[in-house]
Amino acid sequence: MDTLKVVCGVSNRHLHLSQEDLEILFGSGATLTVFRDLKQPGQYACEEQVHLVGPRNTLRNVRVLGPVRKQTQIEISVTDSFALGLKPPLRDSGDLAGSEAITLEGPAGSLTLSEGVIIAKRHVHFHPSEAEPLGIKDKELIAVRVEGERGLVFENVLARVNEAFTLEFHVDIDEANSALLKNGDEVTVYRISL
Amino acid sequence: MDTLKVVCGVSNRHLHLSQEDLEILFGSGATLTVFRDLKQPGQYACEEQVHLVGPRNTLRNVRVLGPVRKQTQIEISVTDSFALGLKPPLRDSGDLAGSEAITLEGPAGSLTLSEGVIIAKRHVHFHPSEAEPLGIKDKELIAVRVEGERGLVFENVLARVNEAFTLEFHVDIDEANSALLKNGDEVTVYRISL
Repeated sequence: MDTLKVVCGVSNRHLHLSQEDLEILFGSGATLTVFRDLKQPGQYACEEQVHLVGPRNTLRNVRVLGPVRKQTQIEISVTDSFALGLKPPLRDSGDLAGSEAITLEGPAGSLTLSEGVIIAKRHVHFHPSEAEPLGIKDKELIAVRVEGERGLVFENVLARVNEAFTLEFHVDIDEANSALLKNGDEVTVYRISL
Repeated sequence: MDTLKVVCGVSNRHLHLSQEDLEILFGSGATLTVFRDLKQPGQYACEEQVHLVGPRNTLRNVRVLGPVRKQTQIEISVTDSFALGLKPPLRDSGDLAGSEAITLEGPAGSLTLSEGVIIAKRHVHFHPSEAEPLGIKDKELIAVRVEGERGLVFENVLARVNEAFTLEFHVDIDEANSALLKNGDEVTVYRISL
């Protein structure tokens, strides 16, 4: 069976903002400020942070990722969802119709969104040159094996193949903790579910 | 391949107390009071709760499980370990030598333990009559498959076989969240790693 070694990126809670929502939260004409570049080309963590306000609790100082997007999207873990008192669906990035509502608080204002909160589906970013030798196509479900004391095989991992991507496996903090997986650890991608 | 359907029990952070530590925290002559029985025969959640005090933060109102044990043992998740500022090892229940230190606060007093904090290894409790048909022996490592949107295969799952046990798969909250697994969900046990 053909396999591929891939580096893991662990995503903490974060959000992507539309230009309109960015200006509501940070003031008219606001732009994003790079805090540090991410592994995916053109993506970056920003200096800007907001508070996530749920019916149960508030999670403070949650980092914005840039650049701005067409629609604001908030990605949290199941653990975060219990803390906030929200029930977001498990979704691919960008698939926000009917997702969970939330209130965001920024230094210049706040806004309540009727949708936008999701738990992100774990996924592997591939450049086509990395996916093609394995026969992996965009949106295919694949498997990822993690070695170690809490070794496991993640099934139903979404393959995302795009010229703009660099090879990387993305999980959230719950998933990383369940496998004792850290940022930069190496995992193995399998085309088929095991 | 022979497999077995098993019900899942999700463990939140909790602790087991020695009689000596129980009396320090809850007063001389203190005994445990049953809050509700657990699935494992003779085991119960108690009315008694303590605060876990770590170098970074305190987790309040953490439930004691009974009956009392020879040595006090605190079981937390990786998420909890970040909140508290502790680095507990991944261990089997009862294997506490050199594990993490902590301070416990009860209504009658507090105490600082030099060891006792662990992250519990996921495990399956078997009565011998359930393990024998599959050829599974005590302390063997087996695999457990979870179906669903966040389906995965937990490897390195500890088999615990004892006359005192009832069939049940135990994971902590991080592991449950990573698989969208809930208390009472059914999973599949495999003798071999997949």
